[in-house]
Amino acid sequence: MNSREIRETRVFRLSMANPGDLSELAALFDAGTLDPHHVAAIIGKTEGNGGVNDFTRGYFTQSLMILLGARLKISPAGAAERVPCVLSGGTEGVMSPHYVVFARTKGTGGAINKPALAVGTSFSEAVAPEVLGRMPHVEATADAVRAAMADAGLAPEEVHFVQVKAPCLTSAKIEEARRRGKSTVASDPNRAMAFARAAGALGAALALGDVPRDKLSDGALVQDTSLYSSRVSASSGVEISRTEVIVLGNGLGWAGKLRIAHREMADALDVQAIHDALHDLGIPSTSSVAEADRERIKAVLIKAEPDRRGQVHGYRHTMLDDTDINAQRHIRAAVGGMSAAALGDGRIFISGGAEHQGPDGGGLVAIVAETQ
Amino acid sequence: MNSREIRETRVFRLSMANPGDLSELAALFDAGTLDPHHVAAIIGKTEGNGGVNDFTRGYFTQSLMILLGARLKISPAGAAERVPCVLSGGTEGVMSPHYVVFARTKGTGGAINKPALAVGTSFSEAVAPEVLGRMPHVEATADAVRAAMADAGLAPEEVHFVQVKAPCLTSAKIEEARRRGKSTVASDPNRAMAFARAAGALGAALALGDVPRDKLSDGALVQDTSLYSSRVSASSGVEISRTEVIVLGNGLGWAGKLRIAHREMADALDVQAIHDALHDLGIPSTSSVAEADRERIKAVLIKAEPDRRGQVHGYRHTMLDDTDINAQRHIRAAVGGMSAAALGDGRIFISGGAEHQGPDGGGLVAIVAETQ
Amino acid sequence: MNSREIRETRVFRLSMANPGDLSELAALFDAGTLDPHHVAAIIGKTEGNGGVNDFTRGYFTQSLMILLGARLKISPAGAAERVPCVLSGGTEGVMSPHYVVFARTKGTGGAINKPALAVGTSFSEAVAPEVLGRMPHVEATADAVRAAMADAGLAPEEVHFVQVKAPCLTSAKIEEARRRGKSTVASDPNRAMAFARAAGALGAALALGDVPRDKLSDGALVQDTSLYSSRVSASSGVEISRTEVIVLGNGLGWAGKLRIAHREMADALDVQAIHDALHDLGIPSTSSVAEADRERIKAVLIKAEPDRRGQVHGYRHTMLDDTDINAQRHIRAAVGGMSAAALGDGRIFISGGAEHQGPDGGGLVAIVAETQ
Amino acid sequence: MNSREIRETRVFRLSMANPGDLSELAALFDAGTLDPHHVAAIIGKTEGNGGVNDFTRGYFTQSLMILLGARLKISPAGAAERVPCVLSGGTEGVMSPHYVVFARTKGTGGAINKPALAVGTSFSEAVAPEVLGRMPHVEATADAVRAAMADAGLAPEEVHFVQVKAPCLTSAKIEEARRRGKSTVASDPNRAMAFARAAGALGAALALGDVPRDKLSDGALVQDTSLYSSRVSASSGVEISRTEVIVLGNGLGWAGKLRIAHREMADALDVQAIHDALHDLGIPSTSSVAEADRERIKAVLIKAEPDRRGQVHGYRHTMLDDTDINAQRHIRAAVGGMSAAALGDGRIFISGGAEHQGPDGGGLVAIVAETQ
Repeated sequence: MNSREIRETRVFRLSMANPGDLSELAALFDAGTLDPHHVAAIIGKTEGNGGVNDFTRGYFTQSLMILLGARLKISPAGAAERVPCVLSGGTEGVMSPHYVVFARTKGTGGAINKPALAVGTSFSEAVAPEVLGRMPHVEATADAVRAAMADAGLAPEEVHFVQVKAPCLTSAKIEEARRRGKSTVASDPNRAMAFARAAGALGAALALGDVPRDKLSDGALVQDTSLYSSRVSASSGVEISRTEVIVLGNGLGWAGKLRIAHREMADALDVQAIHDALHDLGIPSTSSVAEADRERIKAVLIKAEPDRRGQVHGYRHTMLDDTDINAQRHIRAAVGGMSAAALGDGRIFISGGAEHQGPDGGGLVAIVAETQ
Repeated sequence: MNSREIRETRVFRLSMANPGDLSELAALFDAGTLDPHHVAAIIGKTEGNGGVNDFTRGYFTQSLMILLGARLKISPAGAAERVPCVLSGGTEGVMSPHYVVFARTKGTGGAINKPALAVGTSFSEAVAPEVLGRMPHVEATADAVRAAMADAGLAPEEVHFVQVKAPCLTSAKIEEARRRGKSTVASDPNRAMAFARAAGALGAALALGDVPRDKLSDGALVQDTSLYSSRVSASSGVEISRTEVIVLGNGLGWAGKLRIAHREMADALDVQAIHDALHDLGIPSTSSVAEADRERIKAVLIKAEPDRRGQVHGYRHTMLDDTDINAQRHIRAAVGGMSAAALGDGRIFISGGAEHQGPDGGGLVAIVAETQ
Repeated sequence: MNSREIRETRVFRLSMANPGDLSELAALFDAGTLDPHHVAAIIGKTEGNGGVNDFTRGYFTQSLMILLGARLKISPAGAAERVPCVLSGGTEGVMSPHYVVFARTKGTGGAINKPALAVGTSFSEAVAPEVLGRMPHVEATADAVRAAMADAGLAPEEVHFVQVKAPCLTSAKIEEARRRGKSTVASDPNRAMAFARAAGALGAALALGDVPRDKLSDGALVQDTSLYSSRVSASSGVEISRTEVIVLGNGLGWAGKLRIAHREMADALDVQAIHDALHDLGIPSTSSVAEADRERIKAVLIKAEPDRRGQVHGYRHTMLDDTDINAQRHIRAAVGGMSAAALGDGRIFISGGAEHQGPDGGGLVAIVAETQ
Repeated sequence: MNSREIRETRVFRLSMANPGDLSELAALFDAGTLDPHHVAAIIGKTEGNGGVNDFTRGYFTQSLMILLGARLKISPAGAAERVPCVLSGGTEGVMSPHYVVFARTKGTGGAINKPALAVGTSFSEAVAPEVLGRMPHVEATADAVRAAMADAGLAPEEVHFVQVKAPCLTSAKIEEARRRGKSTVASDPNRAMAFARAAGALGAALALGDVPRDKLSDGALVQDTSLYSSRVSASSGVEISRTEVIVLGNGLGWAGKLRIAHREMADALDVQAIHDALHDLGIPSTSSVAEADRERIKAVLIKAEPDRRGQVHGYRHTMLDDTDINAQRHIRAAVGGMSAAALGDGRIFISGGAEHQGPDGGGLVAIVAETQ
């Protein structure tokens, strides 16, 4: 990139009728509203269970890459190497399946005197099963986050949100490693997913400077809840083998009215954090965003976690003891209800599994909106 | 009741460690804080799945009646005939298992010049499987609600909340009726539960005057969503054979600082309804009730329903298409998250299955609190 | 087809690592073992929940049609119009995700003096939401089954197994029909699926002559359990809009060692039906098929159903009252355990939802194997 | 016990309509068929989810102890201290909720020349949260098993089945221990349950001599699958604080026609193990027990486990990767289907979580029946 060149991030929040439905994006391409070459990254929420056996993520990704490949005249695999697509499964409760397309164009505005929304992306190398959820995975993630910040031209302090998507383990991968004489971080795939998220989160926290290198070790992952960043969202899924990174911030050198704000969420009832982030963006809200302002909001990105101490505001919750509904599904549904009510809109990305992403039992929220 | 005698409703919101744990109520008895003879009704939320095979309701009820029986020196069965115990299963997300004890004592105050919280109860006759969810069940419920209003000395317009708990069908009961040559309203127990709730809701709506008699018919149940009351909550459970009714309102002839307020909820995102009800009670709230005011709130009673049209605020939800998590569990989790955040407390009674209880896709909220 | 031309059905039972994994089929193509032009039909079992929101079927189908299209040098959509792919979601318990490829080649053998495995396929027109699960859907299915029998050159009495896959309703489709002023057979998608299967099953039963035309009516669907065929398996899925049919039987004019046998299953414990079908195929078995004989078995196709009377062999089951696990998932797991033990192999196609497919509370089994 | 006194074990297999239904046992008491004082132990299967939040076990136990207490003229708590009641939750698939009552009476027969069914019981001290699932828990269990063998007058080699029920951890107990500065064996309650079962199983294996003392250590629990007994079934539940033990065997000094037999199950498809155990008891069976012989069977006790290597007979299963249905529910359903078909009866006790109970990926079966 020419250092004088001004760029602009455009954001489209699109609905899907099912995980294979990319018709709204295709329509943007068909209408000439969006040039497929400008698509930089996608973050979405599909209607699976969000666990190891959630194949809605893979289905959406395959469908997306078929579309992108066709429009870019490259193979689907080539499209996947170019555009990170980070999906979180699980639209429990009032959440609505949707995806947010981040596009990068040449800036159209004139003089730039205040920071605007910036986006950068990167990919790591493939993560081996025996490394997943351990320190080498943390380091590789930190490198990938640094590369994405460079791509966006953002300094660590300008970053408001980093999305990391790490691979995870299946029973088959665990057994395959075992046959090669390698141990994995856990023998239960759902538990391994927690370590994959932890490695992704702490890797990003390291790159951002939110957690110092000397505090990190294999033993700290998942366990040491004092280590966290309130600007990182980490997911994990069987459908990828490399770690994917998307960085969002407000930077000079970027044009347009879009900005991003974020807040730490103290716990699963911290609706005030959402209103505070909205305030940063100049959107008035008390109990709920007014209908007229709702369309100014372009993306809502939340991490949350069932409090492992078993209580919220001093009262027992039952999420962690439920054998029928996975605890992550519980918390997504609850925080989804809270935030969709505050925003008046169910198109919210909420990802459970907030290890090292916000304070213990809490999480974080980032909002992209049009400022005035 | 002597018409000059002033009564007072006292309310205790108690936590349980599991569905068999009545220790907090026992402690109130032991300390002399509450006289067991004054217990009038109990409404609670247990941590089951809220469906046909939710036995946490039966377990809690059995445990409660053993305790009450022992303290009243009557049998558990005798206690159950005297004190209605209406439980809703399912503490999805951030909700906390708890029960609200409504007690009736002689009023301690002096002159009464404004209405205070009143409670009345009643029981119907046993409901036969072939009648359940049909017009005779509606009529019997209306009679029971009228009896409970008389018990409370409340006129229909003074009532803010009626809780109806109807029996429901199991596969075994359906088959038993079939063997007697009787048809039931549905062959699927979960579907029968919907009709049981509908009959309970419309019976109460009839007694309250919220729905006229001539609009009611077997065909209207579950189907005609234009018929509803915003003051009725109906549940259904296998553990009872009679319909149980609890009526709450603000009445003259009742002393104390407690009042009740209610609001219709337009949809599952209508957090404003909660803030409005709080406003009626003189409790300031914008995004969330301040910590200092939280203990003034004594009971929160909500009904909600997954919008059967498949959308909330114009965006698709996935609750009704989910084969893994029952739609009622989804909506309870979401509305629980929204309301617990607004109130700063997970001890909320939210019952799914809001057929004819508030507008289609919405529901209602009633709050009991100490006024100043 | 030239009436003198001898055809042969070849069958490949392949495993998948996930619903997007077609590598075993691609390997057969690559090795020249199977010519893609010979692929006639696919029946498979994917690891979803088998319900309305099971997208593993759509994911597999998309992946398959991409592969087939590439090898046939036609579009994926073109491949889907040519090769029916009938999937059932749900590999509960010991079942293993797999797919059975039925291929049709020119017969290689000499004189044909006994019937061999025959396969025929067909597609119906698109099924409108308001017609689904009603008599026009039944009639259209019967026509499609007749077309598939003609394709296979089989008379009704030579048919051992008909697989019908019908479209189904989502909340969105139900609402769309409602907006057009059309009613659908049910307002609950899971319930509509039952009617879709019923229409598919009775349509096939009509074409086979197993149920007379004058017994059929809208009111009979799902309700009249005395109407059934023990040679029909019907599924339903959101991912298709037309009804797809695959017919299997033993016919003259077909060469090779493969044969098919079937048996009615009296109830969910009827393991003897499996052993009887094996006996027809000359495979000895008492408690379990010997390891040496297991590879002779090429496809196992089962339908089963939770007995709606709530009992098996006089003892209560709990499948229909469970709010957490769908009843079809329960029965698939149980009958899967029974049959996998009998066959020594978890690669079994078991589809729940056996309305009109075998006797009430029971089902059917069909087995394709190499005879000697 | 006077060494000359001959005892007899009587066994009643009773159904329940729900977890609070003890009416069949009450009827036996009322009819004088069974003296309440003779009740020695109860093993049952209730219709919960079998996990941490399965309260059907506590509900049944409470109901049972109320009945027993009333008939024995002692308190329910007194009854619970006298009669071990070991329940496993989860009647997935075709299993039927039931309980087996083991009663001990004076022998009615004359000369005893062959061993007959013997039963012995014991209780451990309370197990502290920080000890649960660790070596002191193993040792305490071994002591309790030795006490139960002494109670039955059985030598280790005469024992066919030991049932151990250990307490388990909830989030609340884990947090409580943490506050006292104590670590627990796991921070996830479901994972802690696995360790509780492992400690129970290895404790019994130690007492039986099936595993040598020097192989045991904290690190071996759950991990070292080479250590196991095929005569031990271990469960865990929140509703108890002490470990309960029931020992069954065939001993001299015991009269009657009842005997017990057991077999190791190699894997989840090992239906032959069931037929072999039946053969030991003189009950002919090939694919299924004949209807005439079914009532001779008095108890069927099975342990099973989803193979942690992710395969059965070389084909991938999906139980361990499922976020929606707990793996133990999957395996119970599958092995329940297999065994109910073999026995012609769904009243089977199958408990998942077979750590150290039978070989890795397999389990065990014990059958009590009337011999001729």
